[in-house]
Amino acid sequence: MRHRSDMTVELIQSMASDSAVVRAARVSTGANAKQLVDPAKDAGLINYLMRDRHGSPFEHNAFTFYIEAPIFVFREFMRHRIASYNEESGRYKELEPVFYVPDLKRKLVQTGKPGAYIFEDGDMSQLIQVYDATYKANKLAYEQYKKMLAAGVAREVARGVLPVNLYSSMYVTMNARSLMNFLSLRTMREGTAFPSYPQREIEMVAELMEEWFAVEMPMTYEAFNRNGRVAP
Amino acid sequence: MRHRSDMTVELIQSMASDSAVVRAARVSTGANAKQLVDPAKDAGLINYLMRDRHGSPFEHNAFTFYIEAPIFVFREFMRHRIASYNEESGRYKELEPVFYVPDLKRKLVQTGKPGAYIFEDGDMSQLIQVYDATYKANKLAYEQYKKMLAAGVAREVARGVLPVNLYSSMYVTMNARSLMNFLSLRTMREGTAFPSYPQREIEMVAELMEEWFAVEMPMTYEAFNRNGRVAP
Amino acid sequence: MRHRSDMTVELIQSMASDSAVVRAARVSTGANAKQLVDPAKDAGLINYLMRDRHGSPFEHNAFTFYIEAPIFVFREFMRHRIASYNEESGRYKELEPVFYVPDLKRKLVQTGKPGAYIFEDGDMSQLIQVYDATYKANKLAYEQYKKMLAAGVAREVARGVLPVNLYSSMYVTMNARSLMNFLSLRTMREGTAFPSYPQREIEMVAELMEEWFAVEMPMTYEAFNRNGRVAP
Amino acid sequence: MRHRSDMTVELIQSMASDSAVVRAARVSTGANAKQLVDPAKDAGLINYLMRDRHGSPFEHNAFTFYIEAPIFVFREFMRHRIASYNEESGRYKELEPVFYVPDLKRKLVQTGKPGAYIFEDGDMSQLIQVYDATYKANKLAYEQYKKMLAAGVAREVARGVLPVNLYSSMYVTMNARSLMNFLSLRTMREGTAFPSYPQREIEMVAELMEEWFAVEMPMTYEAFNRNGRVAP
Repeated sequence: MRHRSDMTVELIQSMASDSAVVRAARVSTGANAKQLVDPAKDAGLINYLMRDRHGSPFEHNAFTFYIEAPIFVFREFMRHRIASYNEESGRYKELEPVFYVPDLKRKLVQTGKPGAYIFEDGDMSQLIQVYDATYKANKLAYEQYKKMLAAGVAREVARGVLPVNLYSSMYVTMNARSLMNFLSLRTMREGTAFPSYPQREIEMVAELMEEWFAVEMPMTYEAFNRNGRVAP
Repeated sequence: MRHRSDMTVELIQSMASDSAVVRAARVSTGANAKQLVDPAKDAGLINYLMRDRHGSPFEHNAFTFYIEAPIFVFREFMRHRIASYNEESGRYKELEPVFYVPDLKRKLVQTGKPGAYIFEDGDMSQLIQVYDATYKANKLAYEQYKKMLAAGVAREVARGVLPVNLYSSMYVTMNARSLMNFLSLRTMREGTAFPSYPQREIEMVAELMEEWFAVEMPMTYEAFNRNGRVAP
Repeated sequence: MRHRSDMTVELIQSMASDSAVVRAARVSTGANAKQLVDPAKDAGLINYLMRDRHGSPFEHNAFTFYIEAPIFVFREFMRHRIASYNEESGRYKELEPVFYVPDLKRKLVQTGKPGAYIFEDGDMSQLIQVYDATYKANKLAYEQYKKMLAAGVAREVARGVLPVNLYSSMYVTMNARSLMNFLSLRTMREGTAFPSYPQREIEMVAELMEEWFAVEMPMTYEAFNRNGRVAP
Repeated sequence: MRHRSDMTVELIQSMASDSAVVRAARVSTGANAKQLVDPAKDAGLINYLMRDRHGSPFEHNAFTFYIEAPIFVFREFMRHRIASYNEESGRYKELEPVFYVPDLKRKLVQTGKPGAYIFEDGDMSQLIQVYDATYKANKLAYEQYKKMLAAGVAREVARGVLPVNLYSSMYVTMNARSLMNFLSLRTMREGTAFPSYPQREIEMVAELMEEWFAVEMPMTYEAFNRNGRVAP
């Protein structure tokens, strides 16, 4: 049995560039649709598209990520419908005993009311409580899972006792427009046009995805930030 | 703490009729698009649309269901992207201790290999093992959940220990085309055009949804069954 | 041959209410999810959902419209992918000679550059030019269409000469979230959060749809307007 | 003014491989998800996925095409909603006088009834009739378009007279699953699981796209053909 506090995000493959945004946008005017002009103009066009929310030119690209995160993160992730998913299955394989626990930096205490929650640091006794409770519950759950398997019970039945902090893995493919929608909802930043209050654990995944996005489409990424992190 | 073996599916609202399928299909020829002709012809047209997979006329309708099922069922359900979901949230409320266990009819033993699994009855000792393991693991998990809450830990952190056989609830809205796709993948029947091997628990939900579909759109439902239960 | 300047939008069927928005939103907290509290609280909740862009509760509803508009309007309309369409087909029926011309109020002159066009009134001589050109081109096109049909040429080949101002008809079904996205992009209003510059003819269709939306979901409609006409 | 009978399909960029299908499928069992085993096993797995309609592994890829085709083809094309489009705009640029006419091989005569049309060769007099009618109607339409522009009428108003056989251009991005759905509906082949009766002109576009698909994902393409050309 293993506990971890980090998330894995690997960029498996991508077809992504700022120039494809520009090219797709320019097909509407037919002007040099298939060749680039100059970087300054391209950045200006991308910024204009982002600001006025012309979203479709940001769809001619794709990113495939390999992600490891707890089930409760995947539950939120898969509510995003404009994406393609393949996940590890508890029906087809015996699941590994790897579980999530928050690390020292994770704010543990929630105050305020729905729609306006504030998270604050816990104290050390609260973290110990979390670790103790998580360890005991995870340990017994996994033992019972193994006991059922040993008795010849089907994996898909036995897995019922496993908790939502169990790690799973998946491939997900999405385009930049969908990715920006994901980032706008699953990260919390000062000064965005619309507020978002994501659970910290999915934000950790989002932040790792965001790094790849910044590398692959720098002009688009800059325009996204400059215009309030609203998906166009 | 409570254990249950059944699923809840209520039809909350619907806008559904065979006549809307016919009307939408007839707009393409402009012939009497807005009035009905006679039931026999309507059934024939619906059967033709289903057989040759003209799917779009089956989209002008909607069903909203209220569903209670374990988290592991919702995990599979929400992979269906052409639908609208709102689910109970472990971030916004304290979750109730209601858990799923299989009943006596649930086949417990899986043989064969991926893609061709066969499920067989378990014996009584296996069911006892499942009940014992599930009860113990669920009980401890929920106790630890409550302990963390009592210590002031945020709900979204504490819920990590809760298992995937915990019941959740949601509203889902989908149209008949999407519903037929769901039924084709999430029920197992003899003689369908394509085989499906759903987990029994999501099939239980699908069967309850199917009853409503049969009532609301009887001609469409009959055509669906007659043509191999393939979503058009 | 007939020319017209108006659009037809009929609400054929709907399953829509503000209360379903509230109910779907409340399932997340489990509090009274299935019963209503009081109108003032409901309006407040809907306004909050709209403002902070919690969009999914606005999807549990559906509107089916019957629409008559020129082909160039349908071309823009069908770029909206979260909707269901069935349109009259030039392959399956002989198309009627009904064509669009702008009326006296339609601004005919475009100035400015892409992304910042301004439309201004034309003078009478320009409108006469439009009517004369449209009448002549439509008349000859339809005559040639009929000539090809008379010679035994397939409808789908003959229709190639017909212009994009020919009227077509369709059924379209969409939910309120998708409808709000349509309205935000296809109407131009002062003071919206994001500017839109729709072609006037699709805006005429949008305005007629908007009237139905206002009637069916008044609280949602008010919240949409109050929050900058951004689709949540 | 120019008339042409061919379609343009260029593959602008792609992120596509059979190995990504295999990798995504294998994540469900966790077995060697990230490395390849051997080509024979891969082909077998892909064939199994296709046959039993496990569609999601075919979504982790993307193709961007640049396409030139008449407006009536784009009208059909854009009914496919699982794709991303950017098209040349008659609002933003003056449209070029390039029009479609069928070539000598195009079957011109349609017999039979809706749902079971048969196309047969026309005779030379019919083709002459098509050419004559098309030339005259196109010529006058374009002249009237130019006349309105010369009078200062906005492009978006003037374009109303232009016919649906006018060429347009677009970028479209789609994944292999969506592409297979497109091919299954927009090509007609003997022996497919479901019959399709596409208009010849969109089939010409589909055939050119299919060539690229065959090159980029040969195992997937073979499995698609072997299993009745049904999109998984």
